[in-house]
Amino acid sequence: MGVKIAVNGFGTIGKRVSEAIMLQDDMYLLGVTKTKPNFEAFIANQKNIDLYVPKDKIEEFEAKGVKVRGTMNELFEKADLVVDATPSGVGATYREFYSKYSLKMVFQGGEKPEVAELSYSALCNHEKAVGKSSVRVVSCNTTGLLRLICSLRKKYPIQKIKALMVRRGSDPKEVKRGPINSIVIDPKLPSHHGVDVKTVVPDINIMTAAIVVPTTLMHLHYINITFDKKITRNDIIEALENSPRILLIDAPKTGIKSTSELIEYFRDYGRKRNDVPELVIWENMIHVEDKEATIVQSVHQESIVIPENIDAIRALSSLEKDKKKTIEKTNNTLGILGGRLT
Amino acid sequence: MGVKIAVNGFGTIGKRVSEAIMLQDDMYLLGVTKTKPNFEAFIANQKNIDLYVPKDKIEEFEAKGVKVRGTMNELFEKADLVVDATPSGVGATYREFYSKYSLKMVFQGGEKPEVAELSYSALCNHEKAVGKSSVRVVSCNTTGLLRLICSLRKKYPIQKIKALMVRRGSDPKEVKRGPINSIVIDPKLPSHHGVDVKTVVPDINIMTAAIVVPTTLMHLHYINITFDKKITRNDIIEALENSPRILLIDAPKTGIKSTSELIEYFRDYGRKRNDVPELVIWENMIHVEDKEATIVQSVHQESIVIPENIDAIRALSSLEKDKKKTIEKTNNTLGILGGRLT
Repeated sequence: MGVKIAVNGFGTIGKRVSEAIMLQDDMYLLGVTKTKPNFEAFIANQKNIDLYVPKDKIEEFEAKGVKVRGTMNELFEKADLVVDATPSGVGATYREFYSKYSLKMVFQGGEKPEVAELSYSALCNHEKAVGKSSVRVVSCNTTGLLRLICSLRKKYPIQKIKALMVRRGSDPKEVKRGPINSIVIDPKLPSHHGVDVKTVVPDINIMTAAIVVPTTLMHLHYINITFDKKITRNDIIEALENSPRILLIDAPKTGIKSTSELIEYFRDYGRKRNDVPELVIWENMIHVEDKEATIVQSVHQESIVIPENIDAIRALSSLEKDKKKTIEKTNNTLGILGGRLT
Repeated sequence: MGVKIAVNGFGTIGKRVSEAIMLQDDMYLLGVTKTKPNFEAFIANQKNIDLYVPKDKIEEFEAKGVKVRGTMNELFEKADLVVDATPSGVGATYREFYSKYSLKMVFQGGEKPEVAELSYSALCNHEKAVGKSSVRVVSCNTTGLLRLICSLRKKYPIQKIKALMVRRGSDPKEVKRGPINSIVIDPKLPSHHGVDVKTVVPDINIMTAAIVVPTTLMHLHYINITFDKKITRNDIIEALENSPRILLIDAPKTGIKSTSELIEYFRDYGRKRNDVPELVIWENMIHVEDKEATIVQSVHQESIVIPENIDAIRALSSLEKDKKKTIEKTNNTLGILGGRLT
């Protein structure tokens, strides 16, 4: 049966983490919580995922024909660990509540770093999280940046990074967020993304800026890295090819030259919900001059942190202390690719 | 093995029809054609779908590492029937070529009606297509209109229909079509959609107008139907509930109030590529006054015609003469829903 897990929230992250847990042999999904009886509650019923709801909402769920297993308190009483997948900032308000039940806690990147003992990215600091009682899996953009940084910096020390985050406006299911026709700037420089990277690798010199554009599919990062020493394009490609959860795309070969076509590839490939948990590097855009490299990469905001959540559970529960082994196990169970696409 | 089928083209329709054929026990996919070695060619290789390409392009495909089974001529020589899934208007230019190989032919709605002996919609005129040598499966919008019309008109004769087609600007994978921020009118009234409906049910009085809006997910139809006699809301709901390939959605119950959330439901449900081959009726918007009904429905342009293509193959090949039986067989193999969502 393994570690008994509660997932608090069944939205974009919660539903994906829940299904990913169900594919593991060393952990067990006890159930998920919901506060609104919408279509995602019906989906939970269809997938035989036990639903736990606030006591005063049971009637409302049942009136709509949703099967409820019990109250949220009942779920947390039985669990060993909770994955908090509540909306940004809400997780912190649950912290004390989780503590009452002595639960280990995995928070998401929408929370402030102080919510947990450690900010987490599997490739960068899995070992540090082993046995801790709480971690915060950093956000989608930070996860993308960190996968790149931690794939390169060990062999090729980094002097500094300057990067622009070109962010998606909303997730595909959202209808109340924009922009529809604007490029929105984040006037704060440095943007929080670079700052967030330092919660995991404090010694890195990174400065990020961010804009938002009218798309729902993926983010894109434009990154300039200055290394300590001269580096070649091949050094970078080789390092990325051999790092897990990173996928190089050859645009001229595949004809994939947009996030639309990239998502279409994964629709055809058969990925549930067209998810792309890999960090995608546009190989043909890798450009190197002496010590400086330019890299352009895409991040699927809905799914990139899912494998990291699974690894974080393994760290907290001391199920797997070795970074390589947990990454490999998670990648195999979730079908995550590496190397080069086709 | 069954009827041997060639699919000419492996884009939005071709790839879906190919996979649908592979799920049938009375027909067999010999292979598909492609003219460009892009990512969809790699997908065909991954799925063990044999690729046939123009003779002078074999080298170009193989240089990219795409496995080619033979030339297009070789494919057509072996086949009994071809599903033409080439771009709009290109199908007609292949007609003579297909005839040379004595192939039965299924064309798509992008072609003019004259391309085939009969314009086809399973629910409306399957029987008429049995044994014919060519049919044209009408377009996504026309298929949506016809499913509605043929579900109602037998029991409730229709005096006239006036409808607005609110069309999606492009398919999700496309990056060169718009609009991004405009409502584009189709200045021709009646628009071709109503005219196209009459190629299948010539005696219907229908007038359609069309606009295009900035979305890639689905079309939406706003339809006013005047019946010969007084009708009730329940009459309509009951007829639609009991008609195949039509799905009623209760918006307040499910919280699904947009095409975004509808597509999200089918992503969660696990539909490959988030396809929705069902005609979706927004149940709460059905409004009736005396003889007049207003109906609002959504059409997934990428997938709604796929089941009709399978039924059309059965008609031409005289595999199943009975409308109900072919629809049921196709629905079962493709997992198509009916009735009410949840």
